[in-house]
Amino acid sequence: MRPVDKQGRLTVGVDLGGTNLRIAAFDSEWKRLDYINLPTRVGDGPEAVVGDMCDAIRRVLERCGANQELIGVGIGAPGPLELPSGRFHRPPNLPGFDGFLLKDAMESNLQTAVIVECDANAAALAEWKSGAGKEMPGDSMCMLTLGTGVGAGIILERKIWHGMNGMGGEGGHIPVVEDGFACGCGGRGCLEQYTSATAICRAANRAAALGNAPHIAELIARRIESQGEFTARDLAGLAREGDEAARQVFADAGKYLGMGLAMLVNVLNLPLYVIGGGVVSGWDLFAPRMFEELRRLSYIYALTEPAANQAFTPGKTYIVPAVTGPDAGLLGAAMLPYLEADPTGI
Amino acid sequence: MRPVDKQGRLTVGVDLGGTNLRIAAFDSEWKRLDYINLPTRVGDGPEAVVGDMCDAIRRVLERCGANQELIGVGIGAPGPLELPSGRFHRPPNLPGFDGFLLKDAMESNLQTAVIVECDANAAALAEWKSGAGKEMPGDSMCMLTLGTGVGAGIILERKIWHGMNGMGGEGGHIPVVEDGFACGCGGRGCLEQYTSATAICRAANRAAALGNAPHIAELIARRIESQGEFTARDLAGLAREGDEAARQVFADAGKYLGMGLAMLVNVLNLPLYVIGGGVVSGWDLFAPRMFEELRRLSYIYALTEPAANQAFTPGKTYIVPAVTGPDAGLLGAAMLPYLEADPTGI
Repeated sequence: MRPVDKQGRLTVGVDLGGTNLRIAAFDSEWKRLDYINLPTRVGDGPEAVVGDMCDAIRRVLERCGANQELIGVGIGAPGPLELPSGRFHRPPNLPGFDGFLLKDAMESNLQTAVIVECDANAAALAEWKSGAGKEMPGDSMCMLTLGTGVGAGIILERKIWHGMNGMGGEGGHIPVVEDGFACGCGGRGCLEQYTSATAICRAANRAAALGNAPHIAELIARRIESQGEFTARDLAGLAREGDEAARQVFADAGKYLGMGLAMLVNVLNLPLYVIGGGVVSGWDLFAPRMFEELRRLSYIYALTEPAANQAFTPGKTYIVPAVTGPDAGLLGAAMLPYLEADPTGI
Repeated sequence: MRPVDKQGRLTVGVDLGGTNLRIAAFDSEWKRLDYINLPTRVGDGPEAVVGDMCDAIRRVLERCGANQELIGVGIGAPGPLELPSGRFHRPPNLPGFDGFLLKDAMESNLQTAVIVECDANAAALAEWKSGAGKEMPGDSMCMLTLGTGVGAGIILERKIWHGMNGMGGEGGHIPVVEDGFACGCGGRGCLEQYTSATAICRAANRAAALGNAPHIAELIARRIESQGEFTARDLAGLAREGDEAARQVFADAGKYLGMGLAMLVNVLNLPLYVIGGGVVSGWDLFAPRMFEELRRLSYIYALTEPAANQAFTPGKTYIVPAVTGPDAGLLGAAMLPYLEADPTGI
């Protein structure tokens, strides 16, 4: 366990997103001390973005005061990227970053060690240590983050599973539909194309366009008229009012999520799978179909499903919604220096 | 490394199959010293089968001579089974074994420690230490065994990956087709239903029955007339003579295998995946389509595919046919006592 800290030790976490940069300092009890949110100047290139991040880190450290000891800096970035170098491979959300070496660039600007991690892995780390994993303790878990895309982070025996090039844990790119929708990764039928917020909105648009979903169509038209955007949250509202077409879209997403989880359960047999990201606010709408599909496709899950309302029981397979919310990636990034210093002690 | 052994140390491996029991003693250089093959008396119940195995183990040890030191006994058994207890969960190939505790039963008969392992994991261990993994050294690998069913064994950082209940690595039950063929596991569309020898024969039968495959139909009829069985090997013969329908069956199997591998590569990012089992004799027939699908569905594979005819290069993803043949499971079972004694030393 980290020492309880009277001396003002802190770590800085950075969440490098395609739209926003978020930088925060945390104390060793994971209390957030300071926070900066900036737009990501993707168009100005990676060096400009690194400059903005490093300036913000210095600002946060200054504001926390000179008597603080910096343990380290961790950064969560969107993939694909190689680790530990943080070399990007045509990241769809960071055009212009292909081949850029994030770790080197940050370290030469800051003159201190920086740990780069895939954002979905950072989120999994936070959820494991300070979210769902706190109530369901274990050495291994997997987190799927259903947002604009679908990310996955896998922790095996207290370590983030990186695979050989740091590219392991690409759960969003599990193929679930043969010759299905084209994916940004170059593949087809990836889980991301059926369970992300983007995919859910696309399915709703399709139902509306086919004339099968008058209430969805009406709401889409209203959003367009007010120059707003139709979102998965809008769709969830309709579904909760009882609209069948909207309910079906969430049920379909649940089905594909169940297929993806069946694969993960059958191959990895972990005690805990956490579903996070914005889509998880529709848990009541997609989870019943997800569990139905999972029971059907995974005899391991069927054998180890926990009884409802039972206390946590080792040996059971838990599939639960995330509890850390949108800050999971930021907090997880700040946890990285501790994990690196002592994988068993965090 | 195991000590080079002048003193006659040996281990015994057992391959418990639904049709045959195979028992063999190996020296510490993996040289086979003695071997017994018996029918599995499934109908007489698990106690009778355990009795046969233990008698055969004693016989093998006797024949190896009194000056041999027994290091341990390992047994590979068909799943699903919980580990380390070896408790069966309705194993399709061993009816009547549901709930039976293999480890206890073997140990009380033999009065020595017995290590139970899933047969596909034992095969992966043998392939890693004395097969394809010898030429492509690494700490992690995955083996898919395409036989009557499809088994998978995963080795992560020098340990067999068991997951929480010993049920990890069920690669045969990765869903690859939505609402596809019903599987013995209770699911639908599992990889096993498209890439096992059984599945390949079924696909050939279907093509023949639909009238699309006159040469396949003719050979099936000939086999039936001679009271023989139409096998995947027959089909491979036709395909190599240029029969288009037979070639298509192998290409389809290759496609689904590519989908399953894409999932494993995207989630695990390992350096080595080995394809074993009887179907691998048709490697030339299914591998081209398998690689095509894998490149399409896994950007990680596309980024890390080794160049043809290049020497082994760390950081690349190798997909290769198994080299240990049908004895992989038996040899792997005999390796288990060494792995248990010293996971880093085997």
